[in-house]
Amino acid sequence: MSDHDELEAKFFEERRALEDKYQKLYQPLYTKRYEIVNGVVEVEGVVSEPATEEADKAAEGVPNFWVTAMKTNEVLAESIQERDEEALKYLKDIKWSRVELPKDDAQKGEASKGFKLEFFFDPNPFFTNSVLTKTYYMIDEDEPILEKAIGTVIEWCPGKCLTQKILKKKPKKGSKNSKPITKTEAVDSFFNFFSPPDVPEDEEEIDEDAADELQALMEQDYDVG
Amino acid sequence: MSDHDELEAKFFEERRALEDKYQKLYQPLYTKRYEIVNGVVEVEGVVSEPATEEADKAAEGVPNFWVTAMKTNEVLAESIQERDEEALKYLKDIKWSRVELPKDDAQKGEASKGFKLEFFFDPNPFFTNSVLTKTYYMIDEDEPILEKAIGTVIEWCPGKCLTQKILKKKPKKGSKNSKPITKTEAVDSFFNFFSPPDVPEDEEEIDEDAADELQALMEQDYDVG
Repeated sequence: MSDHDELEAKFFEERRALEDKYQKLYQPLYTKRYEIVNGVVEVEGVVSEPATEEADKAAEGVPNFWVTAMKTNEVLAESIQERDEEALKYLKDIKWSRVELPKDDAQKGEASKGFKLEFFFDPNPFFTNSVLTKTYYMIDEDEPILEKAIGTVIEWCPGKCLTQKILKKKPKKGSKNSKPITKTEAVDSFFNFFSPPDVPEDEEEIDEDAADELQALMEQDYDVG
Repeated sequence: MSDHDELEAKFFEERRALEDKYQKLYQPLYTKRYEIVNGVVEVEGVVSEPATEEADKAAEGVPNFWVTAMKTNEVLAESIQERDEEALKYLKDIKWSRVELPKDDAQKGEASKGFKLEFFFDPNPFFTNSVLTKTYYMIDEDEPILEKAIGTVIEWCPGKCLTQKILKKKPKKGSKNSKPITKTEAVDSFFNFFSPPDVPEDEEEIDEDAADELQALMEQDYDVG
């Protein structure tokens, strides 16, 4: 290992420790945000009037917080279709965390590194998953080049899938089969975020951009309460 | 300022201090590279035989080091034309450094931040500049979004410009003017790197990619000696 590589390895180590330190320092703020958004605690300074309808409403937290936050970001806003918004209203938290797989001999002894985004949902009429996860594996953590991204398979409720449209075609006149033909067609949806393409380079990059935007968004200042 | 912003500001401050610390630690290695590449010192382990032709050659350093290094990078290799290589043989060093402009009231009191790449050249038959600089100003140092890039105006020697081709057209028959018409046409060249487009977003991004590649390249391991 050259002098330069040795120094660089130390730099990456220290930088990572610094990031971890601040991730821990941010944590109480994220917890507080979660509690306010989801009405676990009432916001200080809001005078409680338990008997009135308004107070009951306030206790419910901040409705549509995440979908509103996501839509302030241009790239994300573009991916969110009107049909998605209804489902995103059930989004109650997004968490970012590091991922580190144990060393695997098959992978030349390199630990696979990356990060994941977890989207926590309240029970909703669209899908049965309570968490949708997107995990990014990097070729090399220090030069952030994406190796692959894996998303949760969404268990859509019948007729509620937002990433496919069902087309019903009338059978041709005189056809033996008299039932309408059902075809599905892929449509634009934020939820395609969880079905990243397998390899195609350009699309992966777009995908990674979206992840960057999400991360930046999560670190954005939040003016709640 | 929210708690989150305060924490984030501290994080950026610490991260920057860490980067500066390692920049200083790398410096002796960069100096050593410069000395080896340019034959200021002889490489240890190379037995000196002053009387032979080979030894004289070795004392000249590592010919074509930078153009060779640049061509190992796919993006840069694409921008380097055959005609550019002759000029790039005179490249003796590339330096990266931070740029911080003093606060300017006209800019809402924000200090303008960024970085610059300096390309140091030996005297050569192509242009008279000894340093070509490309400076990148960021909208916000912490989220690396490019505001603008400014490059050195290259003082080409007569007939040696690598970024323009001179087209000579014969005047039309019967034209009053009998002299050939001279037109210049922009051509692909690595040296267009120093004439970044004014605003066009997409091109700026490509430009910034090239800068990233250059930075990565400079930090790459170098196997000299």
